[in-house]
Amino acid sequence: MSPQMTKMRSEIAEQPEALRATIDSLLPRIDEVRALGERTRQLLFVARGTSDNAAVYGRYLVESHAGRLSALAAPSIATTYRRKLDLEGVLAVAISQSGRTEEIVETLAWAKDCGAATVGVTNGGPDSPLAQAADLALCTVAGTEEAVPATKTYTTQLAALAVLAIGLGADVDRADLLRVPEAVEKLIAEPGDVDAVVDGLADKHGVVVSGRGLAFSTALETALKLKEACYLHAMGLSYADLLHGPIAVVDHATPALLVAAESGPTLQGTVALAERVVSAGAAAYTIGGGRALAAAGTAAMNGPDLPEWVAPMGLIVPGQLLTEALARRLGIDPDAPRGLNKVTQTD
Amino acid sequence: MSPQMTKMRSEIAEQPEALRATIDSLLPRIDEVRALGERTRQLLFVARGTSDNAAVYGRYLVESHAGRLSALAAPSIATTYRRKLDLEGVLAVAISQSGRTEEIVETLAWAKDCGAATVGVTNGGPDSPLAQAADLALCTVAGTEEAVPATKTYTTQLAALAVLAIGLGADVDRADLLRVPEAVEKLIAEPGDVDAVVDGLADKHGVVVSGRGLAFSTALETALKLKEACYLHAMGLSYADLLHGPIAVVDHATPALLVAAESGPTLQGTVALAERVVSAGAAAYTIGGGRALAAAGTAAMNGPDLPEWVAPMGLIVPGQLLTEALARRLGIDPDAPRGLNKVTQTD
Repeated sequence: MSPQMTKMRSEIAEQPEALRATIDSLLPRIDEVRALGERTRQLLFVARGTSDNAAVYGRYLVESHAGRLSALAAPSIATTYRRKLDLEGVLAVAISQSGRTEEIVETLAWAKDCGAATVGVTNGGPDSPLAQAADLALCTVAGTEEAVPATKTYTTQLAALAVLAIGLGADVDRADLLRVPEAVEKLIAEPGDVDAVVDGLADKHGVVVSGRGLAFSTALETALKLKEACYLHAMGLSYADLLHGPIAVVDHATPALLVAAESGPTLQGTVALAERVVSAGAAAYTIGGGRALAAAGTAAMNGPDLPEWVAPMGLIVPGQLLTEALARRLGIDPDAPRGLNKVTQTD
Repeated sequence: MSPQMTKMRSEIAEQPEALRATIDSLLPRIDEVRALGERTRQLLFVARGTSDNAAVYGRYLVESHAGRLSALAAPSIATTYRRKLDLEGVLAVAISQSGRTEEIVETLAWAKDCGAATVGVTNGGPDSPLAQAADLALCTVAGTEEAVPATKTYTTQLAALAVLAIGLGADVDRADLLRVPEAVEKLIAEPGDVDAVVDGLADKHGVVVSGRGLAFSTALETALKLKEACYLHAMGLSYADLLHGPIAVVDHATPALLVAAESGPTLQGTVALAERVVSAGAAAYTIGGGRALAAAGTAAMNGPDLPEWVAPMGLIVPGQLLTEALARRLGIDPDAPRGLNKVTQTD
């Protein structure tokens, strides 16, 4: 199988175009977001799997730059316990690639029923059940995604959430968002030393993936990709949670993969963590974090030339390329890993 | 090393007494909780590590039985991004065994500064920095805990959160809480087939631990114990999140450990998951879930004879016993695993 032949690899390469189309389509809808924001004070994200990792980005972005408390919903409260909550003044944001995962659609309908205003973020189009159920649908324009591991539908979800944050009054420069497609394009062409990391992980059972703040979402999503498509025991942990216990599992048999933006308040701690992992005798592979993080680790993959608040749209790219290449090295078809379907239904 | 010699094993055995003392001490304080509840509408839990798993229990309990939206805080918003949120009408509940983890104390002080009412749950006593920083301190009465893996300080945190939920008007029978110490005592004496699970995990690199709703906290905490003290790649996942991707890692080399209460709306789905894992050729070890779950799995550990809302105080016990026995089998001193201190400081 040549490196160019998997659908996953093609879809990774389609991200700059998908991001451009999504940003162009959604930026004009900022006033609609603003109107919902004026009626609400807090956010509640509803999602599962890859979309839940996008929600983690949305949560940190809205809290760190728009000052609104954001929670990740426990859908079982709606669908299993069938308990109503007081959601007056809450903006519920449901995220689903397909827009037809019943649990997510049902939880958004429950949120509306509990008094929340609602937004749906989906690549399923305006006719999808999720878009139909929401007060406002923010449809990503990623095109059809065929590989089971989500790539372009994930990064475009992040773009939609960046638009959401701008509409909620985030103290950011929207010009940064317009720079994302080109930065992602450059990163796909020059991702750094992915091969060294493939070599390093090919005979390992597990890896710990860590990042903090806005980059925590990237750590979770990178870990999920490696679990889904490489069957690796990949644990996505925040920098702080890693130090509260699981640091014990990092050793010569379990490398760490550490991710950070080039700037921002979490970089310094991530560099220190890389140094700690290396001094403990384990490998610390790095994504982004500029020269400081690259110098502290064992092998470095590049990050995007972007400010921290939009960096996660690029920081995931080396992890996607790593997953695709490592799956092939392990003899797995990354487009169709075992046990998974493109649309997951849970009750 | 005899089974009775580790501090961890002694502290597991001290849980009935610690729970009794904590419940006796905290039940009379329900009116103080009620007063804070009347001033607030939502909850925000602040915690790390084992205490964060207690927070997950608190979150599901308060949502499913008291109808209040509950979020888990991202402490880095306070301590790294140094961003203020609008926390008017929010009750912030910080949980820390020692009561002196700086990040948690700082985040609680930040929450108060942002307009929240505050509760501290700690075993560090009324003079600990966390108790001093909170409007209301709910001090657990677990006594000194010396083993690094928390056991009795965790279950007493759950008892404190049960008292909190009662004070917030949860639709539960407080007599159930009074039955917990005896049920835990019985479970320590008759934990079921722990030995078979030790045998099953002794040559494995990883395990997936899953539970849903209120028992999700038990899955997370069991996984954390196995990571901390057995260096196992233990992934704690909700039933639903497991189906969204990570189910791919469950195979003959990676068993599942599934946990549920004897009753409640999540039992049926957990039984179905055990059947799915077994039919995929993997082992499904079970904790609790009565006869239905035991019959569906490969080897069964017992759960407590308790209703779902208080069951997590017992459901963790077989996981604690498993962790202690497996660590010894692997030649690890469970009282002092590598890389960890009793009080973890993160910035």
